[in-house]
Amino acid sequence: MNNTISFNRPYMTGRETHYLYQALEIGKLSGNGEFTKRCQEYFEKRYGFGKCLLTSSCTDALEMSALLCDIQPGDEVIMPSYTFVSTANAFILRGAKIVFADSRADQPNIDEDKIEALITERTKAIVPVHYAGVACNMDKIMALAERYGLFVIEDAAQAIDSYYTGQDGVKRALGSIGHFATFSFHETKNIISGEGGMLVINDDRFRHRAEVIWEKGTNRSAFFRGEVDKYGWIDVGSSFLPSEIVAAFLWAQLESLDDIQERRRAHWRKYYHRLSAWAGQHGIGMPHLPEYATNNAHIFYLICESGQQRDELIGLLRERGVQAVFHYLSLHRSPYYRDKHSGGELPNTDRYSEALLRLPLYYELEGIDTIITELKTYKRYEKVAV
Amino acid sequence: MNNTISFNRPYMTGRETHYLYQALEIGKLSGNGEFTKRCQEYFEKRYGFGKCLLTSSCTDALEMSALLCDIQPGDEVIMPSYTFVSTANAFILRGAKIVFADSRADQPNIDEDKIEALITERTKAIVPVHYAGVACNMDKIMALAERYGLFVIEDAAQAIDSYYTGQDGVKRALGSIGHFATFSFHETKNIISGEGGMLVINDDRFRHRAEVIWEKGTNRSAFFRGEVDKYGWIDVGSSFLPSEIVAAFLWAQLESLDDIQERRRAHWRKYYHRLSAWAGQHGIGMPHLPEYATNNAHIFYLICESGQQRDELIGLLRERGVQAVFHYLSLHRSPYYRDKHSGGELPNTDRYSEALLRLPLYYELEGIDTIITELKTYKRYEKVAV
Repeated sequence: MNNTISFNRPYMTGRETHYLYQALEIGKLSGNGEFTKRCQEYFEKRYGFGKCLLTSSCTDALEMSALLCDIQPGDEVIMPSYTFVSTANAFILRGAKIVFADSRADQPNIDEDKIEALITERTKAIVPVHYAGVACNMDKIMALAERYGLFVIEDAAQAIDSYYTGQDGVKRALGSIGHFATFSFHETKNIISGEGGMLVINDDRFRHRAEVIWEKGTNRSAFFRGEVDKYGWIDVGSSFLPSEIVAAFLWAQLESLDDIQERRRAHWRKYYHRLSAWAGQHGIGMPHLPEYATNNAHIFYLICESGQQRDELIGLLRERGVQAVFHYLSLHRSPYYRDKHSGGELPNTDRYSEALLRLPLYYELEGIDTIITELKTYKRYEKVAV
Repeated sequence: MNNTISFNRPYMTGRETHYLYQALEIGKLSGNGEFTKRCQEYFEKRYGFGKCLLTSSCTDALEMSALLCDIQPGDEVIMPSYTFVSTANAFILRGAKIVFADSRADQPNIDEDKIEALITERTKAIVPVHYAGVACNMDKIMALAERYGLFVIEDAAQAIDSYYTGQDGVKRALGSIGHFATFSFHETKNIISGEGGMLVINDDRFRHRAEVIWEKGTNRSAFFRGEVDKYGWIDVGSSFLPSEIVAAFLWAQLESLDDIQERRRAHWRKYYHRLSAWAGQHGIGMPHLPEYATNNAHIFYLICESGQQRDELIGLLRERGVQAVFHYLSLHRSPYYRDKHSGGELPNTDRYSEALLRLPLYYELEGIDTIITELKTYKRYEKVAV
């Protein structure tokens, strides 16, 4: 199957191993070395983020945010059901009850108007997930957080290099708005390090503790800055920091961020312009971008009119050697959480779970014309009409 | 300071980047790919370990073991105080109370005869740490665990390629004896991947759940083996698995394991034979190997007769361009745990904390003759006699 167009293909710029050998020359391959610092500073400067800390995964960054919010057993955390399991697990590990909100009708992000009704005295945090790198309505969410004294953790796993323009007219990078934000550099993301992630601490009250928790509960970072004369165990923590091997790899990717983004956006636009009319004829929804959001070309998705149609399209593309895939299963219906879910029906979530289809999208994607051509051979009702 | 002999220097065999590009060709840089499986099988076959799962760190492996033991708030876990913070933090994150036992008088491992008195109705697990890769008395510890129905998690962070010969005369690899065992591939270890670790599941009852927790609480692994027809969220979990970038790196190291071990053991023996007489003259203790234990040459340490003597030796070596360092601070005296510690005085722990000195030991170490020569210029009481 040499002609198969895979759904994803990780891209290396070629300089990753060069920087790995640089790290070796510096004499440090464990975490928090030169390349870790370089990456963190890059993000802080380019996107106006607060303190950045690289982590082994976005999951780890979410777990750090749960520790920093001091989530206690019984505390409630509101998030969309249409998300990756880690968004929920990170808080469940601290004993939280997850309260799932429905997605918007026009796109998979949390419906900002469905949140307030879910807030109780036990609510401690809201976790908006910027699905496909498209901004949630952060003005409404931050206003709710302020009114009720809640933390906001932006799950920006997919949202690198994407922006939100607020009611004040200011354009802010996703990840710079909530008290915390978490990013992923998993191989499926725009910028990668195989597995990898980052925590952004925008609320300065938590900078110090974040660093301690990151360094296994020790004040090692303060020690190396000369702020304390010895370091020791002062808090809980874990080994959240990735090695310099991972950070050196990531640094090479960051050097090519603009190139990578330009190419991905070109692919995305090609899909969008060449599929719009066809989609309309077949009852298929196209990606919707609210006016406050930018597009970072992380995912190109279609919203089929039914699960059956999606399966037909996946099957048709598979026959022609193209891997197209669905995405999240509704977390509130999962074997693990369906008995714990108390939030009623979430029809939009279920619809995306059943009918959202993702097309291949990556830097080195070459078969995009083929994919579009093959898709257009699809005839609505061709199978049900038999 | 070009002539400085550093305490540690990470070693690359040269094939790490070759395997990284192989992983890229295979098309997968995220976790649980070819190189992850290859490393895991290597360990299972070579050392007779149960199921092996690579993790992002030994800390992560310890956290997995705490989840698998189902540690609940108030449960007690017995471990040495002379260990790294992660040994304790992993269980504290699940709500455990840590009960610290003293070290042996002749070496830093947990004193197997001090454990039983610490067992209560809330005790759930014992965590022996094989300090410097030297085996704890596993017969006694496993017998206690059986009598009281406890889990044993071997903290084998430093113990790769080291063995224990039981009362039955059978020689077993460290990490193959407890219900679980955890390893580290941090850059300071014999075999490295910058940061990195592994969980060994010797108790087969936990194989399935371990895999689920490792894969973020999903049954993804069973799905890819064709055991279930779709995968979803079935349990808590985290992103414990490292990327193929890390696993490819580790694989190159494993190919050179025998070479690395031979070289490290030669360094260790040179220190031992050439320093023994001198140490005896200065009241300095040499590493002690119980008859049931082998030596994996992870650490070469000296036990000075006092903290003052250790500081003098560190100072003398630093003047001559050699980095020698102390090791753990007693966890029961840490700012974080001293108020929670209820186990009384731990004099041996305190002695190692105060007087143990580690000398440089790594594959590419070249200045070992210099280090020995410089050490021997030390005159006992030279400073106190003034």
